[in-house]
Amino acid sequence: MRRIMLVVAYDGTKYCGWQIQPNAITVEEVLNRELSRLLQEDIEVIGASRTDSGVHAMGNVAVFDTNTRIPAEKLCYALNHSLPEDIVVQRSVEVLPDFHPRKWDSRKTYEYRIWNADFIQPFNRGYTHFVYHKIDVEAMRAGAACLLGEHDFTSFCSTKTQSPDHVRTIYSIDITEENHLITIRISGNGFLYNMVRIITGTLLLVGEHLKRPEEVAEMLAAKNREAAGPTAPAKGLMLVGIEYFPNPVMDRPEENCGQLNIHIE
Amino acid sequence: MRRIMLVVAYDGTKYCGWQIQPNAITVEEVLNRELSRLLQEDIEVIGASRTDSGVHAMGNVAVFDTNTRIPAEKLCYALNHSLPEDIVVQRSVEVLPDFHPRKWDSRKTYEYRIWNADFIQPFNRGYTHFVYHKIDVEAMRAGAACLLGEHDFTSFCSTKTQSPDHVRTIYSIDITEENHLITIRISGNGFLYNMVRIITGTLLLVGEHLKRPEEVAEMLAAKNREAAGPTAPAKGLMLVGIEYFPNPVMDRPEENCGQLNIHIE
Repeated sequence: MRRIMLVVAYDGTKYCGWQIQPNAITVEEVLNRELSRLLQEDIEVIGASRTDSGVHAMGNVAVFDTNTRIPAEKLCYALNHSLPEDIVVQRSVEVLPDFHPRKWDSRKTYEYRIWNADFIQPFNRGYTHFVYHKIDVEAMRAGAACLLGEHDFTSFCSTKTQSPDHVRTIYSIDITEENHLITIRISGNGFLYNMVRIITGTLLLVGEHLKRPEEVAEMLAAKNREAAGPTAPAKGLMLVGIEYFPNPVMDRPEENCGQLNIHIE
Repeated sequence: MRRIMLVVAYDGTKYCGWQIQPNAITVEEVLNRELSRLLQEDIEVIGASRTDSGVHAMGNVAVFDTNTRIPAEKLCYALNHSLPEDIVVQRSVEVLPDFHPRKWDSRKTYEYRIWNADFIQPFNRGYTHFVYHKIDVEAMRAGAACLLGEHDFTSFCSTKTQSPDHVRTIYSIDITEENHLITIRISGNGFLYNMVRIITGTLLLVGEHLKRPEEVAEMLAAKNREAAGPTAPAKGLMLVGIEYFPNPVMDRPEENCGQLNIHIE
């Protein structure tokens, strides 16, 4: 029995998120079905991030155990033949048998993309949130600075969360603007339910001068979901990648394969 | 009666190209239908570039005559409300009454995008041609240099063309590589049927070392379609924009609105 890790990219547009649920197609369900068919075993993957309906990923991580004799590195080639074209496994590799993608220490990176122009752009309309009010990126950066470090993020967490502990650490928030595309790139040791989307919705209020940057610190201190801004739409959110500590990859200790350096277009 | 120019962006995935044809949905047909409905007149646009089935555009140009009292600059806002989300008018402006988007001197710019990696990328799969063989971009550049300037491009033109004159001028071909994305950006005074796609298919042979760069000059000299490479797939092609000389825009001689500086994602 070997434990295999998949690095999975998907366009979340047509999926009701990652996690299996009745009467809806999810990424997890499609992976289980195609892996079971390919390996002729009952496969149930364990996912790292249970992304919401409509959220995209370049590097979500899933692991499963198998008796197959197919080399781990070749599995992704076989699997991509039968997967739909909006789910593409970017890598498959053997990991330590006790590796668990939600329980190991990790650094997750998300990006939220905003198209800030007079009109929608047909080519990125599925991967950006369209805002036509001119956004002040410098103000957003000042607001974002309040969120860096270890905090109780109750104000930036959906009340539907099942997590009892709302303390998380944000390592970095980088906000870039290239022509009309604003990208919020955020890394942390973990994120609460809807946390990146609520942070984005809040920073957009600051960027539109409806809130002052200093108010973000007050919202954080309130520890109350109602203090923060709205939840930005799912389609602008992308899970970029996950790094694990220590590196769970077998035989190749120098690599950390949860992190993929893929350019998104 | 005023003549209005539209700068039209569209995701060509679901359309059988620009030009109206029976039993198929085209961009021209959708524009005519929605303009006629909005203006309560029978509108038939004249398009600049009759892009093929599946080809995309950031800045195709269409003109039409109207008696409407809606200000020209406001028309795009009204029109975008009723257009499907894969066709977005980026600008509307009044032009000289004798302006014709196919007969005036112009400089057209196309981009062809190639995703050169081990696996497809789910987010740009509709806008790139996927090639997994490693491509030598320097060799492509050397091959492309043979095509610059004024030439008879019969070898790089579909035999289905109806154009008797195959002489065109290519002003520039810039090939860039960023992570796994290779972009061929090509500007000229006009392009023959399938010309950019055949140039791309030929340069890909050079990039995969199946042809030498010098052979591109031989292909050009042959003036025979069979001498050049295959026609690259439609979905990687994008009409970026069109500049007209002299500038046809009314009242604003300093602008050249056929050319839009929009960043594609």
